[in-house]
Amino acid sequence: MIKIETCLTPEILSLHQLEGKIAVVTDVLRATSCMVAGLNAGVNSVIPVIKVEEALEYQKKGFITAGERGGVKVEEFTIGNSPFEHMQEEYHGKDICMTTTNGTVAITEAKKTAKEVIIGALLNVGTVAEYLKEQNQDIVIICAGWKGNPSLEDTLFAGALIHRLQDQAELTDDASFMALAQYQQANGKVADVIQNYASHAKRLSGLKAKSDLSFCAQEDYCSILPILNGEAITIKKN
Amino acid sequence: MIKIETCLTPEILSLHQLEGKIAVVTDVLRATSCMVAGLNAGVNSVIPVIKVEEALEYQKKGFITAGERGGVKVEEFTIGNSPFEHMQEEYHGKDICMTTTNGTVAITEAKKTAKEVIIGALLNVGTVAEYLKEQNQDIVIICAGWKGNPSLEDTLFAGALIHRLQDQAELTDDASFMALAQYQQANGKVADVIQNYASHAKRLSGLKAKSDLSFCAQEDYCSILPILNGEAITIKKN
Repeated sequence: MIKIETCLTPEILSLHQLEGKIAVVTDVLRATSCMVAGLNAGVNSVIPVIKVEEALEYQKKGFITAGERGGVKVEEFTIGNSPFEHMQEEYHGKDICMTTTNGTVAITEAKKTAKEVIIGALLNVGTVAEYLKEQNQDIVIICAGWKGNPSLEDTLFAGALIHRLQDQAELTDDASFMALAQYQQANGKVADVIQNYASHAKRLSGLKAKSDLSFCAQEDYCSILPILNGEAITIKKN
Repeated sequence: MIKIETCLTPEILSLHQLEGKIAVVTDVLRATSCMVAGLNAGVNSVIPVIKVEEALEYQKKGFITAGERGGVKVEEFTIGNSPFEHMQEEYHGKDICMTTTNGTVAITEAKKTAKEVIIGALLNVGTVAEYLKEQNQDIVIICAGWKGNPSLEDTLFAGALIHRLQDQAELTDDASFMALAQYQQANGKVADVIQNYASHAKRLSGLKAKSDLSFCAQEDYCSILPILNGEAITIKKN
């Protein structure tokens, strides 16, 4: 049996032992959804960094820069954190350096000790589940949350992943059980639940943000597995 | 509308602003259930403290001492943290000093800034809800959790409370919505869900612990409102 634990916010990541485990990091709105959508469309790699200054160093080296602070695009950056921006044809084959309020911090933390870091979003949740079944290793699902607080959409991702793994998995903490129950309670209407109840959805306003939200809330839109190799996230080839 | 937010673990309590708000602290297994059960049976007051040494100072002054470390009764203490111990006739009219791994720490933290601290358990959740409706003030529900992690039983208490308040309340964070969904998903079978899925339930073994668990999982067993007055928790009189 695969042992699964879920960390609902990076604030309590130190309570989780990541050594020897596969970490699956998610930030559904919108960092990891952007990464998955971009890589699936043709982006070559994404380097997650913590600080705006670090991203600007990569910009000097020719990288596309992407990301936000407090939900707003960083002025000097090429693009923000709408998945549609990351999918644009002009970035196919390009390398992106990205920094966001919650998501890239969670990835950087996970990298320090986990055996492997997988990038998950609702968009590729089925593919992540299939990969984890094959690996048959213990897993920690790390939800980026919102400024230290648990978030509904990331918890639903954890539940969607656990739902797909549950025949082969043992849930070792209450957070995993709660995430699964949350997903079951959504009863196939994950997008509606996120749109109606997630506080992050209320913070996103305007037509463009609404279409980002509908896009990011789709389960199994694509079947790629982004994995962290050294500094960069790339698609794992079979 | 009453604004409600939920803190799923004291580790992130600093992200919540308690000033001017009513804090409802819960530790269903078993600190606040013991307090509620004891006070309802006839205990005069309960003083929550952080350290075993502090409790032993109260013991010298004639207090009954109660509590655990890692789920085990502290050797020098009069009683542990089974609600049945707290309900014994010999403690009616007596003052108890209590320290536990998670619950008393959460109460002590809440006391620092909240306008008022209420002690909640499934046992008295309906009475807590009625009181909060009358007060019509903003609320933070603080779940004691288990060693820094969210716990299912405390989250279910939060959901049970929010469920009773929802017509008059606005949920201001995702944790509150998730707690409510968790309670709804339990579909009237809160005790079964705790017994079958809470990791804390798995840690409790033996017949005595099982009866503690069934007892603590009861909603609306009694109708008292324990409130923190200075150092001591007592029943609030109408």
